[in-house]
Amino acid sequence: MEKPTLPKGTRDFGPSVMAKRQFILNTIRTVFQTFGFQPLETPAMENLSTLTGKYGEEGDQLLYKIIDSGEPFEKLKGQVKHSKTIVNFSEVLFDYLKQFTYNTSINSQLTVADIQNNLAEFFDQFEFDKHVDNSTVDEWQYGLLKNYLKKNIPIFAQILADFYQSLNYEVLEINKRIDEIKFSKFYDFVSDQLAHYYFSSIPSKKLTPQISEKGLRYDLTVPFARYVVMNQHDITFPFKRYQIQPVWRADKPQKGRYREFYQCDADVVGTNSLICEAEIILMIKEVFKGLRIEDYTIKINHRGVLSGIAEVIGEKTNETALFVAIDKLDKSGEEKVRAELSGKNFSEQSLTTLFEILNTKASTSEKLLMLSEKMGNSSTGKKGIQDIQEVSSLLTQFKSNDDHVEFDIALARGLSYYTGCIFEVKINNVTIGSVSGGGRYDNLTQGFGDKENLSGVGFSFGVDRLYDAMEELKIFPTEAKLSSKVLICHFDDESMRYGLAILTRLRANGIASEIYPDVTKLKKQLDFSNKKEIPFTIIIGSEEMKTGLLAFKDMNRGEQQTLTIEQIIQKLK
Amino acid sequence: MEKPTLPKGTRDFGPSVMAKRQFILNTIRTVFQTFGFQPLETPAMENLSTLTGKYGEEGDQLLYKIIDSGEPFEKLKGQVKHSKTIVNFSEVLFDYLKQFTYNTSINSQLTVADIQNNLAEFFDQFEFDKHVDNSTVDEWQYGLLKNYLKKNIPIFAQILADFYQSLNYEVLEINKRIDEIKFSKFYDFVSDQLAHYYFSSIPSKKLTPQISEKGLRYDLTVPFARYVVMNQHDITFPFKRYQIQPVWRADKPQKGRYREFYQCDADVVGTNSLICEAEIILMIKEVFKGLRIEDYTIKINHRGVLSGIAEVIGEKTNETALFVAIDKLDKSGEEKVRAELSGKNFSEQSLTTLFEILNTKASTSEKLLMLSEKMGNSSTGKKGIQDIQEVSSLLTQFKSNDDHVEFDIALARGLSYYTGCIFEVKINNVTIGSVSGGGRYDNLTQGFGDKENLSGVGFSFGVDRLYDAMEELKIFPTEAKLSSKVLICHFDDESMRYGLAILTRLRANGIASEIYPDVTKLKKQLDFSNKKEIPFTIIIGSEEMKTGLLAFKDMNRGEQQTLTIEQIIQKLK
Repeated sequence: MEKPTLPKGTRDFGPSVMAKRQFILNTIRTVFQTFGFQPLETPAMENLSTLTGKYGEEGDQLLYKIIDSGEPFEKLKGQVKHSKTIVNFSEVLFDYLKQFTYNTSINSQLTVADIQNNLAEFFDQFEFDKHVDNSTVDEWQYGLLKNYLKKNIPIFAQILADFYQSLNYEVLEINKRIDEIKFSKFYDFVSDQLAHYYFSSIPSKKLTPQISEKGLRYDLTVPFARYVVMNQHDITFPFKRYQIQPVWRADKPQKGRYREFYQCDADVVGTNSLICEAEIILMIKEVFKGLRIEDYTIKINHRGVLSGIAEVIGEKTNETALFVAIDKLDKSGEEKVRAELSGKNFSEQSLTTLFEILNTKASTSEKLLMLSEKMGNSSTGKKGIQDIQEVSSLLTQFKSNDDHVEFDIALARGLSYYTGCIFEVKINNVTIGSVSGGGRYDNLTQGFGDKENLSGVGFSFGVDRLYDAMEELKIFPTEAKLSSKVLICHFDDESMRYGLAILTRLRANGIASEIYPDVTKLKKQLDFSNKKEIPFTIIIGSEEMKTGLLAFKDMNRGEQQTLTIEQIIQKLK
Repeated sequence: MEKPTLPKGTRDFGPSVMAKRQFILNTIRTVFQTFGFQPLETPAMENLSTLTGKYGEEGDQLLYKIIDSGEPFEKLKGQVKHSKTIVNFSEVLFDYLKQFTYNTSINSQLTVADIQNNLAEFFDQFEFDKHVDNSTVDEWQYGLLKNYLKKNIPIFAQILADFYQSLNYEVLEINKRIDEIKFSKFYDFVSDQLAHYYFSSIPSKKLTPQISEKGLRYDLTVPFARYVVMNQHDITFPFKRYQIQPVWRADKPQKGRYREFYQCDADVVGTNSLICEAEIILMIKEVFKGLRIEDYTIKINHRGVLSGIAEVIGEKTNETALFVAIDKLDKSGEEKVRAELSGKNFSEQSLTTLFEILNTKASTSEKLLMLSEKMGNSSTGKKGIQDIQEVSSLLTQFKSNDDHVEFDIALARGLSYYTGCIFEVKINNVTIGSVSGGGRYDNLTQGFGDKENLSGVGFSFGVDRLYDAMEELKIFPTEAKLSSKVLICHFDDESMRYGLAILTRLRANGIASEIYPDVTKLKKQLDFSNKKEIPFTIIIGSEEMKTGLLAFKDMNRGEQQTLTIEQIIQKLK
């Protein structure tokens, strides 16, 4: 038997990794809750109708699709067999059969070749379109079968000949009794063959949706939007929800990119208040404080500022191309972005002005001043500047400040649905990319045909990246372990039993603790404690049982003390 | 556009449900950790080779299978085309072609009918088995194609005729150049047709594994066993792990049965110590104490006791049938179980003894005495009795007792892998079935071909059932809510901004709080607070800003006080 393996791009999280991950997740969860966000969990599986078309074509291809339960292929073949197109074609063939049979001289013996030649003629003259009601059928299916009939005359000749044979009649008899042949009998015979052929010809893209109606969630935003649409009459708006769950993407696995990973989203929908934007900055600061990450940058920009720039440089109509190009500035550098935009017919002059603006190195207030001067005529641009100023002012009201916050005019964030402020967070001096990002959007529920489009603002932490960054910085606190604090060791059955009551005392005081459950050498028990990184042991021997004074050992320091259980509890609590 | 829906059998957990679920999960998690269990998380997706064959045929059918990414059907058709069988058959046909061409008189014009007749003769005489190396091919595939060739001679005649035509040669030419016709050219032509046919003929059961190699986990035990096998050299045994994650089953959704639900498992592997069994009972008691569930029963039995009974009544060889029947005693009653066992040739006398034992109403110690007398000669039976006695004795050593514990000789638990103690927990006076269960097993890793079979003992809580039971008993504590504790209300932009600093003070003290983020009527803000069940509000007006004394309102009692922020923090902390 082969050794079991994990699917590519997925991971087990063993105890020590789990402890660190829980430290990150608990920190984030606590901050979200302190800021009044409430938890939501949605199912791993969503209907494909909910998921597809929301992430672009590329995203759709990364959706994990689940095969319908039961016998989806059998069901599909059955459906094909009874499709309108197949019924129609069977009728056409049956009509032909009747006609042909009547025209055949009564005593001649029918051969496959006879039928074949006749059928070829028949199909040549036959106007399928008039006979097949293709307004009600899948056009693609119709075209496929029409071509099939014409191309595969010998096959149909054989089907018809087989059918004759299956009736066990002489042609003479058939000729007499053709009207008695029930269409249903013929239909069963022919439709099976047609269904077979049709099924084998369906290309993957058409086949998959027929055997799969559910997929795994790709992110937390679409399930959230779906939840809001489904529950909009029960939700009290503004609605602050957070959601911490895994998502799945059939991406190429590579370093730092997994097929299953956690997202931690917080969104507020149903208000335009910039207090929400300010609170996002505060939450990021709180989380980083909790995680003890000190050197980081919260980049902020505004889609209005970017639109204003597009307007000012005379490229209002090429906004999207501009944003997409700017988004790459960080990775590709100015030269390549310039080349890309030149290729899209941005004039030299517009590019000069653009990079003059983007390259401005100055304080936030200086940048805002510069932009105000340049974008005096763009109302979207002005709105962007005002929003950025207001967020900064609100931070002061919150008794916080602009520390860690950088107004980055070149921050674009690719996703097209952002309409207001946008954020991105980077930890400095690590090799990991952004660990958080988000922004304001106007059209959360549009994808579900909702007329009352809800505006909102949200952001997300990438747990896996935070984890990697913290490992790189070596800043996981030593408490971020979830092993027991104490192991009780013993010498024989009697001292082991004695230890159980001690264990109960420790646990009643909330101290995670365990006993080595088998009678064995002390060394083995101490090794076990070391391997599991249990920091303290209590060693029980005959002396300890007599006096009630316990040998309490600090495994890291190697020091041993003799203490009562009360004293030990005080030390560990 | 249609309103979005949820897949059948799945649920969203909105804020109020989440709060209660988190209360349950946190209680369980804390107890697990206090008892020295460490967390493990495994991926949602496992290889189907890991999952299938572990849950019986019925279980296999309930596995959710994920369609391979890419174009699985196209890949499959490609694989079929290049399969050994198809290559072999193409060779046979090519041989035929050459032979036939040589034998055809040079100037005659080949018709489809000619080929057809000749091919029929050829296939009749041809011994496929000698020409096709079917030791290396899928026998089923081979049989399918052989039948296909014989049955569909006209189709092959057409393929061959088409091939001639595609070469654009006169027969004369072909005859001269037949050796120059590369097999590869012919093969491409023919194998496409064969692959097409083969693909359309594959039944679902054979097709699914070819387009799906991953499935969603069905439980937490198999992923745990897979983890242990993969990491056995790094794990320190005895290994105590807990795992709290959702599982998925393509079951018929019905009340209380979902397609996605959480399991909470705790297992110890690598020790036979009965301390583990005693600790399971202690953990169940601790969890129920934490959840404030008072009236419940922990049923305990032992597979050895059941085997001993089978031996005593002379039905040792029918053990499994006996256990399966006893398992239904609770639901079906004695009469039906008797009938079932009679039907399986259990003698009247054996059944009389059986029900005498099963129906014994007595204390645990009396039952044990009765069994000791009856099972004096069964060593497995005696071991079972000793284990039950030892677990009871260990509970005393732990300073606990037999409260809530019931030795139930009729408890069988269907799963065949249990070998020692078995448990089942029921909450009394509710309509919900068992909320927890488990037992000892000897063969955790056997399913993965592991020779060093690990024995262990584990149990599991059903969160959904616990939830339903607690709702039925109406015992969720009112604290099990995750809304903010305070909402800050205001009258205008100025007082709203003033409130932000208050908010920061509250949050810095760990008090979950929020501000109504838009300037609006006070009534709307108070309504918002009531709807979200936020228990307190702080109302800020001009007077409050002047004096720093805040209007603090208890929303449940309707009482309002004037307090400083420090006083409010003291009240809420």
